[in-house]
Amino acid sequence: MTSGVTAPRGFRAAGVAAGLKSGGGRDVALVVNDGPESAAAGVFTRNRVKAAPVRWSEQVLRGGSVRAVVLNSGGANACTGPAGFQDTHATAEHTATQLAVFGAGEVGAGEVAVCSTGLIGQRLPLGRLVAGVTEAAAQLATTGAAAAAEAIMTTDTCPKQVAVAVSGDQSRLVEPAISAGPADFTVGGMAKGAGMLAPDLATMLCVLTTDALADPAELTAALRAAVEVSFERLDSDGCLSTNDTVLLLASGASGVRPAPAQLTSAVTTACQDLVRQLLADAEGATKQIGITVSQAASEAEAVTVARAVARSNLVKTAVFGNDPNWGRILAAVGTTDAAFDPDALDVAVNGVWVCRAGAAAAERSTVDLGGPEVSIEIALHAGAAAATVWTNDLTHGYVHENSAYSS
Amino acid sequence: MTSGVTAPRGFRAAGVAAGLKSGGGRDVALVVNDGPESAAAGVFTRNRVKAAPVRWSEQVLRGGSVRAVVLNSGGANACTGPAGFQDTHATAEHTATQLAVFGAGEVGAGEVAVCSTGLIGQRLPLGRLVAGVTEAAAQLATTGAAAAAEAIMTTDTCPKQVAVAVSGDQSRLVEPAISAGPADFTVGGMAKGAGMLAPDLATMLCVLTTDALADPAELTAALRAAVEVSFERLDSDGCLSTNDTVLLLASGASGVRPAPAQLTSAVTTACQDLVRQLLADAEGATKQIGITVSQAASEAEAVTVARAVARSNLVKTAVFGNDPNWGRILAAVGTTDAAFDPDALDVAVNGVWVCRAGAAAAERSTVDLGGPEVSIEIALHAGAAAATVWTNDLTHGYVHENSAYSS
Repeated sequence: MTSGVTAPRGFRAAGVAAGLKSGGGRDVALVVNDGPESAAAGVFTRNRVKAAPVRWSEQVLRGGSVRAVVLNSGGANACTGPAGFQDTHATAEHTATQLAVFGAGEVGAGEVAVCSTGLIGQRLPLGRLVAGVTEAAAQLATTGAAAAAEAIMTTDTCPKQVAVAVSGDQSRLVEPAISAGPADFTVGGMAKGAGMLAPDLATMLCVLTTDALADPAELTAALRAAVEVSFERLDSDGCLSTNDTVLLLASGASGVRPAPAQLTSAVTTACQDLVRQLLADAEGATKQIGITVSQAASEAEAVTVARAVARSNLVKTAVFGNDPNWGRILAAVGTTDAAFDPDALDVAVNGVWVCRAGAAAAERSTVDLGGPEVSIEIALHAGAAAATVWTNDLTHGYVHENSAYSS
Repeated sequence: MTSGVTAPRGFRAAGVAAGLKSGGGRDVALVVNDGPESAAAGVFTRNRVKAAPVRWSEQVLRGGSVRAVVLNSGGANACTGPAGFQDTHATAEHTATQLAVFGAGEVGAGEVAVCSTGLIGQRLPLGRLVAGVTEAAAQLATTGAAAAAEAIMTTDTCPKQVAVAVSGDQSRLVEPAISAGPADFTVGGMAKGAGMLAPDLATMLCVLTTDALADPAELTAALRAAVEVSFERLDSDGCLSTNDTVLLLASGASGVRPAPAQLTSAVTTACQDLVRQLLADAEGATKQIGITVSQAASEAEAVTVARAVARSNLVKTAVFGNDPNWGRILAAVGTTDAAFDPDALDVAVNGVWVCRAGAAAAERSTVDLGGPEVSIEIALHAGAAAATVWTNDLTHGYVHENSAYSS
C-alpha cells in the first residue's frame, strides 16, 4: 500500500500542470470518491473573510455527500467578490461534467468540493483551470495520490501524505511504499501549508479519505475530534487564513463499519502525522517547538497558555538564537487569564527546569538548544489538565520568504 | 528651556554609570520632586507576571505621593521571587536615605517609586545599584534630565525626552535647547523602549513631570486619558512586558492649577510625542506603520481591528518587502469579531484604495511603499468611530536583535 488519498479503496486521484503557478509545476488536483458511499465531513477556517471556494464547499458539505474535490494552487480565489464565487461554481460544474465522462457516473456540482490556495485578491485564470480539470479527470487513477499531493504545494518544499491501516484493535501508520498486511479499513490523506486556525496565509488544505463505512454525522464527529488535537494545536505564525479546509471523504468500499472511537483514533493518527510533516516544513523555520502546559485547571486553559507562548515573537526569536529565555516564556504566560499563581510557575526547556516558583532555578547554560526539536514545559500548578501546542522559531528565513514574495 | 523631566520647575535628575550594563554606560537614574507638592499617578503593565519594581511602585502609588523615582537599566528584576522584591525595597530605602542627605528633606521609602529594565529572571547586583544611587543622588541637578534619559536606555539607540509648555489656552511642544517664552505650567518627560500594553520586552518605562498643581485623582484621570490614546495605541511586536510603567509626578511649583481638560491635553501631547520617538526607534524596524480603522461601530472596535492588523506578522513582513498586500490585511481584519460585512471592506495603502467592497480595486503597483512612513486605512462601513494604532515592519533586524541577544 502506498500513502496518500488513494490508499483507501474506492478513490482515484490526479495532479496536473495547468499553468496557474508561475513555476510551471503541477497546480490542479482531483480526488474522486468512486463509492459505493459518498458520505463526507469538513471543517473550515474561522476567519470571517472566507475565500469563494470555502463558501462554496461549506454549502456542499451541508448536503453530507462529496463525490469529488477539485483543488488548485497558484491562486486563493479569496477577496474576489461575486465574480470569484461564480468562478468556483463554474469549476465545480465543469468537474462534475468531466467526472461523468471519465467513469464516475452522474455527479452533481453540489457534490463537488473546491479548494484553492495562493495569492489573495486576484481572480483565477478560469480557462486554464477548467482545461486543467479536464486533463486531471482524464488522468484519474488509483495511483494518482502523489501527483495530487504535489499539485497543492505552494511554498511547501515537499508533499505531505499519510496512510493509517486499521486491523482489529490495531491502527498503524503506513510508511510510503512499504507493503502492509490486510486492513479492516484505511484512512489516507494529503495536506499542504503550515497550520490550521492560525496558519500561514499560504493556507492549510487537507483532504482525508477512508474506505470505512460511516455516515456524515459519524465522520463529522471523528473529524472534529481529530482536528481539535492536531491542526488546532499547530500555530505556525498566529495568522488565520481565508482558505483553510479539512475534508474527510468515506467510500465505504471496505464494507467495514468501525466503532466511533476506532474511526476517531485512525483519523486522529492521520491528522497528527500530517501536522508533524507540516511543522517540519514551515516557512523559514529551523526548529520545531513543542509547548506543553501541564497542571492546568482545564485543557482549554492549557491550550490558551501554550498558544500565547507559541505566538510570542520574542520566544520564537530566542529559540532561533539558541537562548533558553524563560523570562520571555513567563511574560507570555502572564498575558493570559488562565488560573495560576505567577509565583508558582515552573518552566523547563529541553528538560532542564530553568524556572521554579516563578524565579531562576537550573543554570540556563545547561540547556542544549542545538538540535532541531525544542520542548518547552510549563507547569501551572492549578489543576490536572494538560495540552501541547506546536510552533516554529521565527527566523531570517521567515522574514525573507514573507517579505520577498507575495502570497 | 530644555526638554525632559527637569523642564518643569521643582524637579532635579541625574544619571550615572554603576556597572549594571555590560557596555559601561549610564544605567542608574534618579528623578526627584522637590515640591512643594508631591502628588503622583501611575499606570502599570497588565501582565500578570509583574516585576518586583512594578509590585513595589503600585503600592507606592496607592499612597498618591511620590518624592522620587529611581530607575535602572541592565536588569528587569522580574521573576526573581521574594529576594527580588527585597532588593527593590532596599533600593527604595537607600534612595530615601540619600535624598535626605542631598537636600530633599525627610523622604520615606514609601514615597520612592522604582523602575527596572533589562533581562528577566536574574537578580540585580544590589551593591552596585546602591552605590549608583548614592552617586546619582550626589549629582542631582535641574539640568540632569539628559543624563537620566540616557541611563534608562537598553536597546534604544537614542534617549527620548519631551517638554510641553502651556500658556493660556496654548500648549506647545518645546524642542530641545530652544528657549521658550514664559509658561503657565509645563509637562516634561522621558521614556525608553518600544510599546505599552503590547511592548517589546525591553520594556516601556516613562516618567512624566509637571509643575502644575493637581491632586492625585486629577493626575490619574489625565494620565489614563493620555495613555489610552498614546502608549496603548503603539503595538510594536504584540508582546506584553513584565515591567511597563508610566508615572506622572506633579511638583505644583508653578502655582498654577490647570483645568482638567488643559492638563489632560498637555499630558497627552507629551505622551504622543514620546510614542512618536519610541516608534521611530523600534528594534530593527525600517518603517513606521499607522493603521487607521474608520467607519467602525465603536472606537473600541476600531482599536481591536487596527491592533489585529498591527499584530499580523504577514502584514508586517509584507510592508518590510514593499508589498501592498491588502489580502493579508483583510485576513487579519477577518480574525476579529468587530461589526462589519466582509464584502463591504475598503482598504487603502498610502492613500491608494487597493481594495473596495472586499475585492481588488486600484492596481497594487501604483502604491509607493519606498518611504519610511506607511499608512494603512481600513473602512468598516459599520458606524462612525475611528482609531489609529501604530506599529513597525517585521524585519531581519528584529529577528537579529531578538535572537542574538538575551533581553
